[in-house]
Amino acid sequence: MDYHKELEFAKSMAHDAGKIMKKYYRTDQGVEIKADATPVTLADKEINDILIERVKSEFPEYGVLGEEDSWNQDREILWVCDPIDGTVPYILHVPTSAFSLALVVDGAPTVAVIFNPWINELYWAVKSGGAHRDGEKIHVSSKGWKDGINVGNSGDKPGNPIREALSRDLYRGEGVVVNNIPGLAYTGSTIADGVIEGKIFTHHTAHDIAALKLIIEEAGGKVTDIEGNEQRYDQKINGAIMSNGLIHHELVKIVAEAMK
Amino acid sequence: MDYHKELEFAKSMAHDAGKIMKKYYRTDQGVEIKADATPVTLADKEINDILIERVKSEFPEYGVLGEEDSWNQDREILWVCDPIDGTVPYILHVPTSAFSLALVVDGAPTVAVIFNPWINELYWAVKSGGAHRDGEKIHVSSKGWKDGINVGNSGDKPGNPIREALSRDLYRGEGVVVNNIPGLAYTGSTIADGVIEGKIFTHHTAHDIAALKLIIEEAGGKVTDIEGNEQRYDQKINGAIMSNGLIHHELVKIVAEAMK
Repeated sequence: MDYHKELEFAKSMAHDAGKIMKKYYRTDQGVEIKADATPVTLADKEINDILIERVKSEFPEYGVLGEEDSWNQDREILWVCDPIDGTVPYILHVPTSAFSLALVVDGAPTVAVIFNPWINELYWAVKSGGAHRDGEKIHVSSKGWKDGINVGNSGDKPGNPIREALSRDLYRGEGVVVNNIPGLAYTGSTIADGVIEGKIFTHHTAHDIAALKLIIEEAGGKVTDIEGNEQRYDQKINGAIMSNGLIHHELVKIVAEAMK
Repeated sequence: MDYHKELEFAKSMAHDAGKIMKKYYRTDQGVEIKADATPVTLADKEINDILIERVKSEFPEYGVLGEEDSWNQDREILWVCDPIDGTVPYILHVPTSAFSLALVVDGAPTVAVIFNPWINELYWAVKSGGAHRDGEKIHVSSKGWKDGINVGNSGDKPGNPIREALSRDLYRGEGVVVNNIPGLAYTGSTIADGVIEGKIFTHHTAHDIAALKLIIEEAGGKVTDIEGNEQRYDQKINGAIMSNGLIHHELVKIVAEAMK
């Protein structure tokens, strides 16, 4: 199976989602706060709805696991989607949010796209086909732990133990720069094209990581759960450690110590 | 004097700068680390050079105070410029950096532009003429301290006392959300269009704040030094507190306590 049709669908959904993100960008966006205390906008809902409609008509045998809504999510093959990854930066008019969509086959991401409509470049991958930004093949960086690496720690707050642990390595002179730039999908994609080396995610939502898992690994990197193990992406996940591969073991170790 | 010619010049420089920022975005950018440990790229230098060349020919009676290079900076009227505000996000391929330019007349910002080429919208203001995003007049938000405000703290690190102080107010339930999204000029502009309420800056470089001072105040907000006083923008500055005006006094108080 070559997944050509699925890839074309994912790319077309990404561009449609980008148009919707831009359409609501300068409006009041209809912000609401959900039960989990995170915000949702009209754009998130509209993108999620369109995805479900299109899957019903174009892939009626698959299901959808979306951040805002799902459909037949007990099926073996699922479209796993974050309609707007980075809703907070979206609301703050910070252009680091992105559309993220993966086809997950029996738990394994197999086709993936991530699209930031302001940058207007599409990251995509198909299992065993390499990772791409538009027409270009991309690769993770070749930096090791002491080569001046840059690691993102998603959602840290003052006193966050992972941030503190990574920063200790910076201050020890090992040259690890920690950032907390919002927009996990887009900034995570920059691991795949060798701009940063790692990213840590401590939440449990598969839609945040499914597409990154495939794009980063097809670019030569590694994505595991927060303890360094493989996991399924069609159900709750156990966080994620994403890296260029070369620093993966150090990140797993630091996170394990910090979370003790 | 109506500054029409200066405004047209500033807008045209902004669009030229945006093209240069995009031209180098996916290259290796020629990153170097300066004496003050901050990075500079080929794009920063090229934009600063073009500004000086154009000022020499179009405004030979003015000077230039630029982040990377200056020319006749002892004159009474200066173009004060940060060619790429947010060089770090620029290098990390995070589209929050911007071109920032102000005409400073006897210390007072009088014409200003801020341009993020990925958003492709131009913030601009002329003294007493209001603030604009492209063709639209913009205004600061009308939120007070306890209305769920959002404040940016530029360049904070774990343990930063201002961050800690603001966060205490959040945890006290006063609803102050603190962010540290990189890209001061662009994210500061979002105070002017009412998206966030404040931003704190503790460094001493006028090129970071001159344009924001005018754009935020013309939108109805307030920009002072870090102690709440007015200051000149053609020499070293004493940090900055930027706000929608309504929360300015609280920010000045919190910063004063945190920096004791």
